[in-house]
Amino acid sequence: MSKIKATNVHWHEGHVGRAEREALLGQQGATIWFTGLSASGKSTVAFTLEHALVQRGHLAYVLDGDNIRHGLNKNLGFSAEDREENIRRIGEVAKLFADAGILTMTSFISPYRADRDKARSLHDSAGLAFVEVYCDPGIEVCERRDPKGLYRKARAGELKGFTGVDDPYEPPLTPELMLNTAACSPQECTVRIIELLERRGLIPPLEA
Amino acid sequence: MSKIKATNVHWHEGHVGRAEREALLGQQGATIWFTGLSASGKSTVAFTLEHALVQRGHLAYVLDGDNIRHGLNKNLGFSAEDREENIRRIGEVAKLFADAGILTMTSFISPYRADRDKARSLHDSAGLAFVEVYCDPGIEVCERRDPKGLYRKARAGELKGFTGVDDPYEPPLTPELMLNTAACSPQECTVRIIELLERRGLIPPLEA
Repeated sequence: MSKIKATNVHWHEGHVGRAEREALLGQQGATIWFTGLSASGKSTVAFTLEHALVQRGHLAYVLDGDNIRHGLNKNLGFSAEDREENIRRIGEVAKLFADAGILTMTSFISPYRADRDKARSLHDSAGLAFVEVYCDPGIEVCERRDPKGLYRKARAGELKGFTGVDDPYEPPLTPELMLNTAACSPQECTVRIIELLERRGLIPPLEA
Repeated sequence: MSKIKATNVHWHEGHVGRAEREALLGQQGATIWFTGLSASGKSTVAFTLEHALVQRGHLAYVLDGDNIRHGLNKNLGFSAEDREENIRRIGEVAKLFADAGILTMTSFISPYRADRDKARSLHDSAGLAFVEVYCDPGIEVCERRDPKGLYRKARAGELKGFTGVDDPYEPPLTPELMLNTAACSPQECTVRIIELLERRGLIPPLEA
């Protein structure tokens, strides 16, 4: 590694290229975009994947409601306009993370196809991988799980505009991966995503 | 490094802690917030620093007008309200990057003290380092440089609300570092920042 002394360092003023950061990290930056109904298992799989990647020595990070809705997007509500802006900003931030070389998971319902496709286009035009993962255990399973009691409230009319009840969810037509999170454990789902990341050359396969 | 096989992997569903990512990277995430007039040398120093850090094996990334104004903040103009929202979003994104373990440089004029202080508070409350670097070669030097002809236009009245001409710049009162970018080269400035990052324990010192 070069030393930072004016005598022997190569000084550059331009941008560090993506390839340099990726060589440093031994991985390619990418966005793994989870989509699916509330309680479909998006976050559980995303965090299981994050742990598995970090255990393998990869830099991974999850963008989810906890770190986005209370921060960057705290000035957005749930109107149609705000929902679109919510996903737009998430797409832009994920792109920045991926450009920095990070394996970035986004875990949001992201119900509208057009909004997800815009996020994909952003990545495509920058030459960054975008892996759409559709978590679908079936709405009955989501409703049965209902960890926050939201489906119950929505069915009772106490919550308006709830995706899957009185607001539409538009499933991806050609997602890179579809996970039946009722039939597969988070661990099994993670293995499938990791295999896909390996096949795409985003992370190297483990040595035998 | 652990192998991802269902038989010998430790599966976790919770969040990866900041410390785990920082151990992986051999650095602590932090935001190095450059502030100063147009043409004060912020971006030149930020990119020189980025190269120097990556050469040392560190993950560093610059957020600047190029990747923010044309992406995340492309729906913002230059009204007082939009300028504030511009810096607010940058502070939030920098915080996410720092939380991911990245040495993150932000290079924006960020003329208002209150807006910068909000970005600092965000980091403080998350236990993340925030290093404010004030680039000040003197406004005469900035105007003489004027690489984009903006000062000339602003003096001619063709550009309204230009910081330093007809819009105020509020210098930091207690920045972590003040750089006279007229007297010091980008390389010398970079060395000073790296020494500060070492003193703060954000990156390890080079081995002799």
